[in-house]
Amino acid sequence: MTLTRVHNFSVSLDGFATGEGQSREAPFGHAGQRLHEWMFATRFWHDMAGRPGGTAGLDDAFARQFAPGIGAEIMGAGKFGPPGWHQDPAWKGWWGPNPPFHTPVFVLTRHPRPSTEMEGGTTFHFLGTGPAEALRTAREAAGGQDVRIGGGPTVVRDFLAAGLVDHLHVVVVPILLGRGVRLWDGLEDLQQGYEVETASSPSGVTHVTFTRTGL
Amino acid sequence: MTLTRVHNFSVSLDGFATGEGQSREAPFGHAGQRLHEWMFATRFWHDMAGRPGGTAGLDDAFARQFAPGIGAEIMGAGKFGPPGWHQDPAWKGWWGPNPPFHTPVFVLTRHPRPSTEMEGGTTFHFLGTGPAEALRTAREAAGGQDVRIGGGPTVVRDFLAAGLVDHLHVVVVPILLGRGVRLWDGLEDLQQGYEVETASSPSGVTHVTFTRTGL
Repeated sequence: MTLTRVHNFSVSLDGFATGEGQSREAPFGHAGQRLHEWMFATRFWHDMAGRPGGTAGLDDAFARQFAPGIGAEIMGAGKFGPPGWHQDPAWKGWWGPNPPFHTPVFVLTRHPRPSTEMEGGTTFHFLGTGPAEALRTAREAAGGQDVRIGGGPTVVRDFLAAGLVDHLHVVVVPILLGRGVRLWDGLEDLQQGYEVETASSPSGVTHVTFTRTGL
Repeated sequence: MTLTRVHNFSVSLDGFATGEGQSREAPFGHAGQRLHEWMFATRFWHDMAGRPGGTAGLDDAFARQFAPGIGAEIMGAGKFGPPGWHQDPAWKGWWGPNPPFHTPVFVLTRHPRPSTEMEGGTTFHFLGTGPAEALRTAREAAGGQDVRIGGGPTVVRDFLAAGLVDHLHVVVVPILLGRGVRLWDGLEDLQQGYEVETASSPSGVTHVTFTRTGL
């Protein structure tokens, strides 16, 4: 059985997964990099960036769950590019010629375009479908491995509301953004049907995992 | 120097400190007792209820900070009674003849009434003032000790927004209430000016403390 997983999904203490005012210059709006500093400090991130050092404790152990066993990712249009990216035929995502996915990536958008093959095994496909159909497509492409829901918050929320997520890893960062896009809206009693575990890190963040009961 | 403190203030993972539909039968609305079960399990709570047993670990250590050094409490009308309590001259709070405060308690209400002396050292006073003036009044009554802001969420939020809180202890309970009254609204960048610490408990809750920098 393959799973649908969310990893390293950061939210502020007041529940915002991205700030207000997203743009090409500010992918996370007024949040800047503040939701992800815990990850940038890890050895996992340093390794990806080809830099030495980085922390090797709790945050690193969680961060590294990102890739193993994943055969495809699904992301929302808001993660793939800034508002209006679909009007730019040359836009190929934020990540340069060799994106950090190394699998097929399915971008949910009302403006599908032809697939784009990148270096390093990442191919961007563009789907105009809802969550359930997108997941079927991604599973077929995942070669028997798991599917990661990569965000942003609206897409993660849609998959959670549809009951399609088996493992959710959220990182609560102890800052108050005050505005932006909330993760948790409309998910009353989500915890039912999941084992929930919390672990605070010396960095100040708290890792919260929801794992479907019986997995 | 005396401090203004908040203790044992529980919120759901999605930020609600009380549920929807508060009434005489349901003081926390649809949340029921779910936000406070971590506290009911502690030795601190068992002691207050005159029962043996209870946990004696992290949750208990935090819960016990509630009373020591406190000389007065300020609470909102929504904590003192269900909607409409001011129309009932016999209403004296939820807590019976001997409330667990044992100090002067200042209830913020648009419907002030004469003070009510209870058993055990608790006296309820009723103020029609805003946070800053209420705090001055409570400080005078606190006999050189600290003032606790007792909730509910609207009152805690008002005091935080006014910069009047020196120490805030929030307990994040890993459930999603989906609706109710939020604690964190309108508090962007509250963490600036505070030392923030997080500690997850084996019970599943996470204790978050904001302590004013330089205290």
